[in-house]
Amino acid sequence: MTNIRVDKHYDLIIIGAGSGNSIPGPEFDDKSIAIIEKGKFGGTCLNVGCIPTKMFVYTSEVAETIRTSGKYNISAQLTDVAWSEIVKRVFSDRIDPIAAGGEAYRRGPETPNIDVYDHHAVFVGPKILSTGQGAEKRIISGDIIVIATGSRPAIPEVITKSGITYYTNENIMRLPKLPKSMIVMGGSFIALEMSHMFKALGVDVTLVNRSNRLLKRFDTDISDRITRATSEAMTTHLGVTFTDLTEDESGITATLSNGSTIHGEVMLIATGRIPNGDLMDLDKAGIDMVGDRIKVNKYGETTAPGVWALGDVSSPYQLKHVANAEMRTIRHNILHPDELRELPHENVPAAVFTHPQIGVVGLTEKEARDQGINVTVKVQKYGDVAYGWAMNDTENFAKLIADKDTGKLVGAHIIGPQAATLVQQLVTIMSFGLDVRAAARDQYWIHPALPELIENALLGLEF
Amino acid sequence: MTNIRVDKHYDLIIIGAGSGNSIPGPEFDDKSIAIIEKGKFGGTCLNVGCIPTKMFVYTSEVAETIRTSGKYNISAQLTDVAWSEIVKRVFSDRIDPIAAGGEAYRRGPETPNIDVYDHHAVFVGPKILSTGQGAEKRIISGDIIVIATGSRPAIPEVITKSGITYYTNENIMRLPKLPKSMIVMGGSFIALEMSHMFKALGVDVTLVNRSNRLLKRFDTDISDRITRATSEAMTTHLGVTFTDLTEDESGITATLSNGSTIHGEVMLIATGRIPNGDLMDLDKAGIDMVGDRIKVNKYGETTAPGVWALGDVSSPYQLKHVANAEMRTIRHNILHPDELRELPHENVPAAVFTHPQIGVVGLTEKEARDQGINVTVKVQKYGDVAYGWAMNDTENFAKLIADKDTGKLVGAHIIGPQAATLVQQLVTIMSFGLDVRAAARDQYWIHPALPELIENALLGLEF
Repeated sequence: MTNIRVDKHYDLIIIGAGSGNSIPGPEFDDKSIAIIEKGKFGGTCLNVGCIPTKMFVYTSEVAETIRTSGKYNISAQLTDVAWSEIVKRVFSDRIDPIAAGGEAYRRGPETPNIDVYDHHAVFVGPKILSTGQGAEKRIISGDIIVIATGSRPAIPEVITKSGITYYTNENIMRLPKLPKSMIVMGGSFIALEMSHMFKALGVDVTLVNRSNRLLKRFDTDISDRITRATSEAMTTHLGVTFTDLTEDESGITATLSNGSTIHGEVMLIATGRIPNGDLMDLDKAGIDMVGDRIKVNKYGETTAPGVWALGDVSSPYQLKHVANAEMRTIRHNILHPDELRELPHENVPAAVFTHPQIGVVGLTEKEARDQGINVTVKVQKYGDVAYGWAMNDTENFAKLIADKDTGKLVGAHIIGPQAATLVQQLVTIMSFGLDVRAAARDQYWIHPALPELIENALLGLEF
Repeated sequence: MTNIRVDKHYDLIIIGAGSGNSIPGPEFDDKSIAIIEKGKFGGTCLNVGCIPTKMFVYTSEVAETIRTSGKYNISAQLTDVAWSEIVKRVFSDRIDPIAAGGEAYRRGPETPNIDVYDHHAVFVGPKILSTGQGAEKRIISGDIIVIATGSRPAIPEVITKSGITYYTNENIMRLPKLPKSMIVMGGSFIALEMSHMFKALGVDVTLVNRSNRLLKRFDTDISDRITRATSEAMTTHLGVTFTDLTEDESGITATLSNGSTIHGEVMLIATGRIPNGDLMDLDKAGIDMVGDRIKVNKYGETTAPGVWALGDVSSPYQLKHVANAEMRTIRHNILHPDELRELPHENVPAAVFTHPQIGVVGLTEKEARDQGINVTVKVQKYGDVAYGWAMNDTENFAKLIADKDTGKLVGAHIIGPQAATLVQQLVTIMSFGLDVRAAARDQYWIHPALPELIENALLGLEF
């Protein structure tokens, strides 16, 4: 045993006030709780992730609609994008008060059983953490500890070594003014949402990605389509790396492995995210990692009994809805140790708010075939249903993959308007195991509304 | 028996080439068939109804987005609406070729067993019709007859008596130029879709309706909201009638029962639709009406054995997806007289493509309470979910009504962006009898996508 002097002991310590902050509810009113959050309450999603990005992206869709109105025989001029007003609307008016309110609530008289610590937390022994409050360092221990410390942007060595100024999702949305041009490094969903968003708001975006494919882990047809759409929307350099990066008062100048030289007033790095487990001295507490994630069993418990982990720091899914679901499972498991539930990792959907939008759930066609599923596949174009005519859509589609032997849907991949909404019905169909033929025929589909895309995709699956 | 000379006898006669035209498929290749259509193939929906209206409405949504972009801190100027180009895109480029192609196909060598007649059809005896082809009158008879003659705009006497020029949905979308101003008479979905569409395209619309409520048969909360939204968007005179109507070269001037005088360059009448059964001398064939509709039994057969009816001419629903479903049922019943299916009239959804959009399915709250259902109701605002923040929405909502005793959804009423898409998932939930608590919790909901509106509405139903 360690001989560390512990300042205070708690029934429960929660490290990270993103999804973790939703654990304490009325059932925990008789427990002493510490919440440790060195940043803002609400975590990545609220402060620098899903929520503000969608607010910016929706705004950029308005700009995009104006720019492309000629497609609908309407002439319009986009005269101004009031960037600082957008930033104010998103952050000052909406998000920052929620984050501040969340913290004030936890520090206030409504939750007298909860203490808030605002220093970075590291383990100094089993179930013992070093953290702090304001100017004071504190050592605290807990019967139960939940690690929900999330992830941070990964910065490639070529960038750190170059010494250039760069932005990430954590600060790009608070730029004081909209830059004229931007280099974006990356090809996954953050890079793409940001690229399409800034491009639509009028920034001259140059996207650079190591792979030739964007969203390369998505179904090939989706990856192909978003790669083409992105290359049409902005300058892209795919399958290349940075060979040199310099900075002057005009911004960043980069040389690429394809010989090109590009320039951007600012540079955004969006090459993935690293779980924060490596910053917590986990070895002092007997908490193992698997790869760069904290290792948890199917119930969410780490290799140190009584220590749980959820969200980006441990989950195979870097998605807020998964973090929330894991949080609910772990809350249940802490409260009901005799009837443990498994982390819910079935039928996990995701959306990418690019132009066009993407919504997916389940297996890609390749994954389904590799698993030996007797697949039937239908690609239904928006342009072949009536509402797609109204949208003048010619390129977008829904791709469904079903199991011929069972009649069950195994994957849905939609790219096009409202994809993030449309996919939800397919999540229902998968989650409740509906037969795709029944799903097509045993319900009404409003004519001529956009879900006819899904109706026709379902009807098109051959058995 | 009659002693009418019959020019030709058929196995099957279909009157009306809207939904009726979808009956003949490969299963009928050995049958002699007559299709009678005095107008355009495709019927109301394709030519003057759902499909072109949605194409115009979507275009008007683009215009509306431009006009309201300031809400998202984007400044834009709508400089021109190229009306004649829109009309060309919708009709000349898309719809007219489909209608003409549909007719040519039925007249051509691909369907040698089908004759097309293009005169109006009236019964002259049981299963005997008078119609014609080109210049020739023809008397034809059939073993089986399907009446699918649809409906036509109802024109109130105050309009016909006044002698003024007026438009209906059948010709308003082909106006040679966009008028500066328009009087719209009506308060149901055609009147509202047209009003919002023309208003967004820049027409000064004045809506006049006899009832104080718009969409008065919808759930009260929906009716309230669309009444308010319409009154904010344009000039409305509600709860009034026309007392005088005059026309000069500048258009229509009308005096209203509230003392107002209003003016419109054109006038649109959209006060409902009359089924076309009254134009067919049904009494000669032993076909009864119920009210203004042809009477059919639960299988779709009229009071004359072997004569069937579907769609607006007989259905309680004036909706294309219902007409299509009735068509499929009657096609089955004709082919399988020993295993008749009932017309599918359960869980019928509908959408109204106004600004904001509306999507509904099932009972209104009042209907549910009147039926003695132990209801639980949740009204979930767009403004209280993250994607609603992105949309800057403050007024719109989803209202769900469930049965506390069974856990089943009995009604869903959505008004706001993507309502026609969002409601489809609730059609699935109702049609497959999912418990609302399971529907909320036993599937993932993408964060922060718009279906979180539905998730929160489901979670908000108290049990």
